[in-house]
Amino acid sequence: MSWNTFGRVFRFTTWGESHGPAIGAVVDGCPPGIALSEDDVQPWLDKRKPGQNKFTTQRREPDAVRILSGVFEGKTTGTPISLMIENVDQRSKDYSNVAQAYRPGHADYTYDAKYGFRDYRGGGRSSARETAMRVAAGAVARLVVPQVSILAYVAEIGGDRIDPAKFDAGQIGQNPFWCPDADAAARWEKLVDDARKAGSSLGAVVECVATGVPAGWGAPLYAKLDSELAAAMMSINAVKGVEIGDGFDAARLSGEANADPMRPGNEGPRFEANHAGGIAGGIATGQPVTCRVAFKPTSSILTPVDTITREDEATQISTKGRHDPCVGIRGVPVVEAMTACVLADQALLHRAQCG
Amino acid sequence: MSWNTFGRVFRFTTWGESHGPAIGAVVDGCPPGIALSEDDVQPWLDKRKPGQNKFTTQRREPDAVRILSGVFEGKTTGTPISLMIENVDQRSKDYSNVAQAYRPGHADYTYDAKYGFRDYRGGGRSSARETAMRVAAGAVARLVVPQVSILAYVAEIGGDRIDPAKFDAGQIGQNPFWCPDADAAARWEKLVDDARKAGSSLGAVVECVATGVPAGWGAPLYAKLDSELAAAMMSINAVKGVEIGDGFDAARLSGEANADPMRPGNEGPRFEANHAGGIAGGIATGQPVTCRVAFKPTSSILTPVDTITREDEATQISTKGRHDPCVGIRGVPVVEAMTACVLADQALLHRAQCG
Amino acid sequence: MSWNTFGRVFRFTTWGESHGPAIGAVVDGCPPGIALSEDDVQPWLDKRKPGQNKFTTQRREPDAVRILSGVFEGKTTGTPISLMIENVDQRSKDYSNVAQAYRPGHADYTYDAKYGFRDYRGGGRSSARETAMRVAAGAVARLVVPQVSILAYVAEIGGDRIDPAKFDAGQIGQNPFWCPDADAAARWEKLVDDARKAGSSLGAVVECVATGVPAGWGAPLYAKLDSELAAAMMSINAVKGVEIGDGFDAARLSGEANADPMRPGNEGPRFEANHAGGIAGGIATGQPVTCRVAFKPTSSILTPVDTITREDEATQISTKGRHDPCVGIRGVPVVEAMTACVLADQALLHRAQCG
Amino acid sequence: MSWNTFGRVFRFTTWGESHGPAIGAVVDGCPPGIALSEDDVQPWLDKRKPGQNKFTTQRREPDAVRILSGVFEGKTTGTPISLMIENVDQRSKDYSNVAQAYRPGHADYTYDAKYGFRDYRGGGRSSARETAMRVAAGAVARLVVPQVSILAYVAEIGGDRIDPAKFDAGQIGQNPFWCPDADAAARWEKLVDDARKAGSSLGAVVECVATGVPAGWGAPLYAKLDSELAAAMMSINAVKGVEIGDGFDAARLSGEANADPMRPGNEGPRFEANHAGGIAGGIATGQPVTCRVAFKPTSSILTPVDTITREDEATQISTKGRHDPCVGIRGVPVVEAMTACVLADQALLHRAQCG
Repeated sequence: MSWNTFGRVFRFTTWGESHGPAIGAVVDGCPPGIALSEDDVQPWLDKRKPGQNKFTTQRREPDAVRILSGVFEGKTTGTPISLMIENVDQRSKDYSNVAQAYRPGHADYTYDAKYGFRDYRGGGRSSARETAMRVAAGAVARLVVPQVSILAYVAEIGGDRIDPAKFDAGQIGQNPFWCPDADAAARWEKLVDDARKAGSSLGAVVECVATGVPAGWGAPLYAKLDSELAAAMMSINAVKGVEIGDGFDAARLSGEANADPMRPGNEGPRFEANHAGGIAGGIATGQPVTCRVAFKPTSSILTPVDTITREDEATQISTKGRHDPCVGIRGVPVVEAMTACVLADQALLHRAQCG
Repeated sequence: MSWNTFGRVFRFTTWGESHGPAIGAVVDGCPPGIALSEDDVQPWLDKRKPGQNKFTTQRREPDAVRILSGVFEGKTTGTPISLMIENVDQRSKDYSNVAQAYRPGHADYTYDAKYGFRDYRGGGRSSARETAMRVAAGAVARLVVPQVSILAYVAEIGGDRIDPAKFDAGQIGQNPFWCPDADAAARWEKLVDDARKAGSSLGAVVECVATGVPAGWGAPLYAKLDSELAAAMMSINAVKGVEIGDGFDAARLSGEANADPMRPGNEGPRFEANHAGGIAGGIATGQPVTCRVAFKPTSSILTPVDTITREDEATQISTKGRHDPCVGIRGVPVVEAMTACVLADQALLHRAQCG
Repeated sequence: MSWNTFGRVFRFTTWGESHGPAIGAVVDGCPPGIALSEDDVQPWLDKRKPGQNKFTTQRREPDAVRILSGVFEGKTTGTPISLMIENVDQRSKDYSNVAQAYRPGHADYTYDAKYGFRDYRGGGRSSARETAMRVAAGAVARLVVPQVSILAYVAEIGGDRIDPAKFDAGQIGQNPFWCPDADAAARWEKLVDDARKAGSSLGAVVECVATGVPAGWGAPLYAKLDSELAAAMMSINAVKGVEIGDGFDAARLSGEANADPMRPGNEGPRFEANHAGGIAGGIATGQPVTCRVAFKPTSSILTPVDTITREDEATQISTKGRHDPCVGIRGVPVVEAMTACVLADQALLHRAQCG
Repeated sequence: MSWNTFGRVFRFTTWGESHGPAIGAVVDGCPPGIALSEDDVQPWLDKRKPGQNKFTTQRREPDAVRILSGVFEGKTTGTPISLMIENVDQRSKDYSNVAQAYRPGHADYTYDAKYGFRDYRGGGRSSARETAMRVAAGAVARLVVPQVSILAYVAEIGGDRIDPAKFDAGQIGQNPFWCPDADAAARWEKLVDDARKAGSSLGAVVECVATGVPAGWGAPLYAKLDSELAAAMMSINAVKGVEIGDGFDAARLSGEANADPMRPGNEGPRFEANHAGGIAGGIATGQPVTCRVAFKPTSSILTPVDTITREDEATQISTKGRHDPCVGIRGVPVVEAMTACVLADQALLHRAQCG
């Protein structure tokens, strides 16, 4: 089943293909009376926009968002908010090779296996272009939980990690990598440029920290905050791993080393560590909610890769053209947006049950 | 909002607390005409049952499941299947310290923050005891997708990993750790026993492989198979990380190294690698679906840990009594069960949309 | 798909068959901290209980409810509330005729058509016995919306209506028909008894009034309060019609006659009529929410009716044994319960979005 | 909570206001490979289009639908289908009276009560204009269940009913009332025109018959086919009553008179009556699924009606301008569309569970 809606009470539904006339999202369940205009959404889309430097795909899309419903006199009305972006730079090209042969690692084969055929132009529905609408929905979600601050950044590219000792949030907007470590950013400049020139690609790890999440948001069991975040992140193109707090490192710790001792504090308890990433039993502790997300390298590379045609014949395929050498970089605003959507949804659900 | 239901069309709802009279699950949406009796469910529960050796909690529960509805003349009727296990060994003890002080890392504080109070007896709803009902639901799910084989095992305890070269599926049931590497099992014997004697605890990594999943199951975007699995795993107590396929390792690979080349095969394409863990674009490729799950060490340890009381006063707490030194071990049948439930649900959803 | 859950955030799932060991409901999403014990639920079940007089089925069930989870120290914890009733009086009898031939008007044929077979004992899942669990869930729902009063009564049996001029709420509990008009109750005594003696059955209309519903509950479009109530009522066995406010009569009025003029009031507007049944645009107006529900006569009658066997051979069937001559009578507490569940759900949803 | 999505696996979400730039729907879960273009949708919209004769609102909207996604090479891809209609004739006028005073019977007051304010231009979200998108979604739904034929018509206006003996399906498209009885159509001509000239309005009853629904579609209990249809119909603007089969009339019948005797037939059983409207136990019997829907008279009338202002002061309001004298007439294609959506959804759900 195609399932294109995310969320429980704060929900959004996305639609659109890479090379169709437009892409869009419908945000439902937003509280009324929130000031909202295109100016609240556009800056987040601009962060994600392709073609801004040589490290992202050279497709040039203005990505100008329009709000078509749900806002009156500058405020949300409580009815569905329709957001739309017209596709502009659908470069006309010959897709016959992609139409015929499956690009390994892409969704080409699996869409055919599921649906019998596919819109092969630019990846169709499986294009990362869909993530623009997540960013737009996330911009609305942020306004629903203004007490929360969300910050994501790239922590690792191609295995080269930032040095936590050099973490400087002020650096994040100063380089094309959303990198908080100026030295790492300098190294990545060459690393990513080399990959780009070679027609290769690199994976990345994105970290996200949400501060200001009140203790109590979240839910036991099948709507655990960890679980909602993991689903949200894994739904992003190219993501193959998610960690909350210490994640896999916690699996290597003893119970003593992994403890998060508590002390009396001024506003709720003070925690002396945050191995749990701000979530215990699926419910927020009041500490920063932290999450790490693994992006695989994009499968679009210049080196020919063995593959098969739709008729099951052996061939090879290589990808020329406009692609991100490291898709994780543009994943940063998407990770932030999905975090915002999860938290807005959980905030409303908590209010529903607990007042 | 408390959300105690998992799944979309094959769905189960669990209920019950550690020290209440019983725990249960209601499985809804199961296809009719499937042979089902308690004998199909009990063996999976027995795999998970506590008190089987010194490496798991010494709480002794027969965990005898009863089917109360949805089966007639030995077959599922298509109506809800109610599964119930009575709690037997709710050892009477003094819970006054747990009632008063929060065990760090547990859900004690967060339940209080959310709900205003909590059933503190044995962890109440947040007890790992709830996972017995997932195993029961998973036993039904397996019957819905008989073409799929699901195998999970412990790949790592306290940072000590199995040697892939020594992997022997036949070993998995031969040691108390669901360990496929006989040498690792021997090492873990001492490792876990030392932790147990010290009142300490250890984290673990569980791996799960589902073979026989047809290409085409799964869905784009917000019901991606990766996303559903991640949500399922992260909803298990103590889980803090999930990887599909190569997961975080893929983030360190180049596009060339991460490629999954395809060749013509007899039944669908033959893949020469499976970095993607059997899922591309959220949809199964036909290769084994692989998943790795990080369990933190249980927070119940003998060493006193700083904490606070409900009245926000500083104190310390230590946990005496019956606890798993490595909760990941008993996580193995739970990981298998959740995988089965995800796949049963996706199988039915695929049939709904694509026939 | 079998879909046995009702509600969006205040939700319940029922399970169980007429002749299985027990029936049950799991209520999820209930706010925490509400005082709840079996004593809050049992009286509503007692209202619905069969065998209380000669006008309802002579099956004798104590219908003693047990709460198995979700309550601690006498208060709801916010986790699932499991409610269970053991089936006691599953009279052992020969079901071979019902197993072989379809009772027209019952679900016998359609269950077979859908599922391939059915639990034919006492109607299995399609038995009105399931409604006991709705009453139990409704008892919890009432506690979620204590500001609301819900009153249902029988307004018509076999075409004989109450006289609105003789409406006396105090009469409702004074006769076996939940009838607010003493004269009508006297007439029905003979009407229903004659039907009972003849092995016949009668339809009925139940009316329900909920006062104290605040203006603003409800939602536009696909969760309109009218729509939720209609779905709730139509899900009750034997119901074939639902009206909100003037219902079909409104279709015969002019716009002038159907107007609900408003005047300034002390607490919100004062309305001079309530043709709309307390709902405009899907949202409560603050006036009483009114609803009318049509119950068909039970299809179980002594007169032989033409039918077919499972093997598609012509035969006849008649129903001897314990059946309600007018199933609408016992529908009264069920209609009240479903109204309570709808309103509790909408109350929480309204709080989620609008605070 | 605003809930603007209808359906379970075949689902659509609508957005848009009467006087915004556009209205739209996103259809999700549609099976792949179905031939679909604007030409499959437009004719149904044309049936509903306003301004076609003097008996409907004189707002003139071309209602030209565009498909923005989910179709490739003329076939559905299985991904979301975005449908959009631009609003053209948003006549610029002075809304200050509607902005200030509540139109009784409309959603003006309740939107304010719920959301704190509202888009008052042309009714905003509560405008019947939204139903155009239901018709568009319904056009897609019809293609999902091509074996089903759906026919709706007006059976009654202002209390004047058609004569069943004069029923002629061929008449339905021959008059402006979707009336199958030529004599009644002639009478209604004067009836509705008189109401129009007087600035008054009339209620109506719409009947709908779906033939070709296979026995087995539908589900027990909370997704009963009766229940889904009732929810669908009651979600349409101005609807206040729904009957399945004989509906309220069944409540006046004896069990003998209401029986639906069965005889052996060539393809499934032959039924000798259809009091149950093609549904027993919530599941289709294979007979025509029949439904009756009551539309109240539109509340927009020329006669001044007592009301209050937003500041709770007494005033009067009358509606000049473009309104339907009998909104039920344009309800016919909407009732058909909602029926199609319910059946498409149930068809897929049945396939999910029962293959």
